[in-house]
Amino acid sequence: MNMYDLIRKKRDGGILSKEEIRYIVMGYTGGAIPDYQMASFLMAVYFQGMNPQETVDLTLAMADSGDRLDLSDIKGIKVDKHSTGGVGDKTSLILGPMLAALGIPVAKMSGRGLGHTGGTIDKLESIEGFSTDLTREQFVQNVNRIGLAIAGQTSNLAPADKKIYALRDVTATVDNPSLIAASIMSKKLASDADVIVLDVKTGSGAFMQTIEEAEQLAETMVSIGRMAGKKTYAVITDMNEPLGEMVGNALEVQEAVDILRNRGDIRLREVAITLASYMVMGAGRASGPEEARKLLEGTLADGSALDKFAEFVAAQGGNPRWIYEPEHFPQAKLVEPVYPEKNGYLSACRNREVGMVSLILGGGRETKESRIDPTVGIRLCRHLGDAVQVDEPFAYLYANDDQKAAEAKKRLLAAYDISAAPVECQPVIRKVIL
Amino acid sequence: MNMYDLIRKKRDGGILSKEEIRYIVMGYTGGAIPDYQMASFLMAVYFQGMNPQETVDLTLAMADSGDRLDLSDIKGIKVDKHSTGGVGDKTSLILGPMLAALGIPVAKMSGRGLGHTGGTIDKLESIEGFSTDLTREQFVQNVNRIGLAIAGQTSNLAPADKKIYALRDVTATVDNPSLIAASIMSKKLASDADVIVLDVKTGSGAFMQTIEEAEQLAETMVSIGRMAGKKTYAVITDMNEPLGEMVGNALEVQEAVDILRNRGDIRLREVAITLASYMVMGAGRASGPEEARKLLEGTLADGSALDKFAEFVAAQGGNPRWIYEPEHFPQAKLVEPVYPEKNGYLSACRNREVGMVSLILGGGRETKESRIDPTVGIRLCRHLGDAVQVDEPFAYLYANDDQKAAEAKKRLLAAYDISAAPVECQPVIRKVIL
Repeated sequence: MNMYDLIRKKRDGGILSKEEIRYIVMGYTGGAIPDYQMASFLMAVYFQGMNPQETVDLTLAMADSGDRLDLSDIKGIKVDKHSTGGVGDKTSLILGPMLAALGIPVAKMSGRGLGHTGGTIDKLESIEGFSTDLTREQFVQNVNRIGLAIAGQTSNLAPADKKIYALRDVTATVDNPSLIAASIMSKKLASDADVIVLDVKTGSGAFMQTIEEAEQLAETMVSIGRMAGKKTYAVITDMNEPLGEMVGNALEVQEAVDILRNRGDIRLREVAITLASYMVMGAGRASGPEEARKLLEGTLADGSALDKFAEFVAAQGGNPRWIYEPEHFPQAKLVEPVYPEKNGYLSACRNREVGMVSLILGGGRETKESRIDPTVGIRLCRHLGDAVQVDEPFAYLYANDDQKAAEAKKRLLAAYDISAAPVECQPVIRKVIL
Repeated sequence: MNMYDLIRKKRDGGILSKEEIRYIVMGYTGGAIPDYQMASFLMAVYFQGMNPQETVDLTLAMADSGDRLDLSDIKGIKVDKHSTGGVGDKTSLILGPMLAALGIPVAKMSGRGLGHTGGTIDKLESIEGFSTDLTREQFVQNVNRIGLAIAGQTSNLAPADKKIYALRDVTATVDNPSLIAASIMSKKLASDADVIVLDVKTGSGAFMQTIEEAEQLAETMVSIGRMAGKKTYAVITDMNEPLGEMVGNALEVQEAVDILRNRGDIRLREVAITLASYMVMGAGRASGPEEARKLLEGTLADGSALDKFAEFVAAQGGNPRWIYEPEHFPQAKLVEPVYPEKNGYLSACRNREVGMVSLILGGGRETKESRIDPTVGIRLCRHLGDAVQVDEPFAYLYANDDQKAAEAKKRLLAAYDISAAPVECQPVIRKVIL
């Protein structure tokens, strides 16, 4: 077997065997296959695609390329959720405590944000003292004790994915459903949950711009998960505008707390409960989504999810008082109202641009080395379909720098369209893949 | 401008501008663009192709990537020929002397052979003392004095082609007509001939296996040459079996001498005269192919082409007596007849395999470092369509090693099919692209 022949086979539309795929993944991760051969192979995959079996084989080979997390000493059926990434997505902060409050263990590995999407770890680190730097023992102990732990991703989980993703990123071979699915699922499979719920975002702020692309990706990932023996569900959710009102690290934690207090943005609450309900079902605690939903709503109504969040924050070194008294969160110096330029209805949002506005303010990373300002961000008080008037702010900017605020305001205004006639909007839950 | 965007543009079927193509060629040659980005770009080109203008722009950028030969101090209209490579192709050794005998200057840069195809320089070096290692001054002086010089290719002629070809070779991106055409034509344009005649081989021993592929490549190269302001013609010739009777370095020189003595294999003579006739026309010495052919046949009939070859050999350090007395050429120790395994007609030849038989005997290079044995090779006394009988050899092997001869015999027999019924054969000249 040699890489040249395998590139040629895929280039000519051939189907690769499990052994051939493993040869490529192991050879590339180990350094025997050079970047330039992998690059031409990935471009051949871009054009010729991979069938479901090839995609599963690729995912499993990548999952096996490094350590696999062993969570067998966590009691119970472990559930995990993964989002394909969006703007203002703080659902992990909400569903983790809800599930833990129901006694369903959530052992989550999470990443930092890059570009226009934020990362769960960056958000949590806006809480004084909070750390995601846990040893495996601490991680397991915390899950066993309080039902929830969130740790930064260890470097040797699916190293093939890390290396392949870095190459795809500079060779224009990211946008292929098999490669995207394998990248996401290899990490999930390596992190040893029993139940995987996938939140596949679609719309202007998502990698999958259309519902068709999102469905294809969701179905591919669900079939990978099932072939690998995991209970897997996918929920396709709308990302044509930010999820919820808040975009920005400390702001998003505060919004999550708001939901845990049984109030706040309806769409955000709906996405968190829907995703969590399939995790409840996967864990065998409910026979259908309606039953699961009732259990979850109970944890918001009785305050048990909020208490669980405070307990979780304390267990990872953070100050739990901040959860009950959010006024402790550091505040941005400037709060700038943004007025619409005309009366009408918010008819379109270039959501990636909204993510970029947060980045400009200092709330995101342009490169891996950038430092994040936790206080800055955006509050969106109007959503797609809402009426707006020139004398009422539709958003507020939280900033620490006048110039950045001015640029951010210009770009935020440019990110929205306002129509004269009312517009119909997408529901936030687009489809469930069971 | 950045390489990522250009990969993406080509991947998505976009048309690259002249500036964009130049950026890629110069960036890659200079080292600013890494191999892995070029590899994914080349695979994108493999799938999306390049239009005629892009192909011309690519060729010119590659031709400009290093030195361009300046032959302006050679008097007259300089003609050059290039073959896409085949087995037993010694036409350069025949047409060079014919043209020089007519006073048409031939200033040829040539390469060494690799794999199943032989190189003109390797063949000439089988003559005692012969050298292609000429300074530019010697090269120009020789052409001005005797009308013909053949030099090894200097390393800084179209370095982009050298680097890109090496990458294509290991990334399965060789077989694309635009990339093949640009590779050939960039070197031709950098070597400053006024007239370019292309011998595009088609068949089992050629890179272009079908006549359609050969036509597409020929038309692409002719249009590149013309857009670059050169008189350019292409002749598509048959390579379903070796050209002529002889395969092997010293053997091929002797066969060329045979043609220059106005005898020898009809098909070989036909290809040499046809190619040369377009060079005569390009040089303005005949108004049509028939007129050119008469002039060329004259140089064979009156011995002037043979004399010119001897003069040329002497000018490059070789012993001219060998040309008149070919018995001086060193001989292989073994001459082994090869008998067909049944009576019938030679109906198919896997010509690449015949090239490999010569390589096994020691007549070719497996790697760039291999040393060539000039004496070994094959004489094919029967051609496709000819009747063969088990008691008459259809070929002879020239070898210096019993074991190699035995293996070579086995492979040569396996390279031919013999049919019970007579078969129709292709003419050797398939098509002329004017």
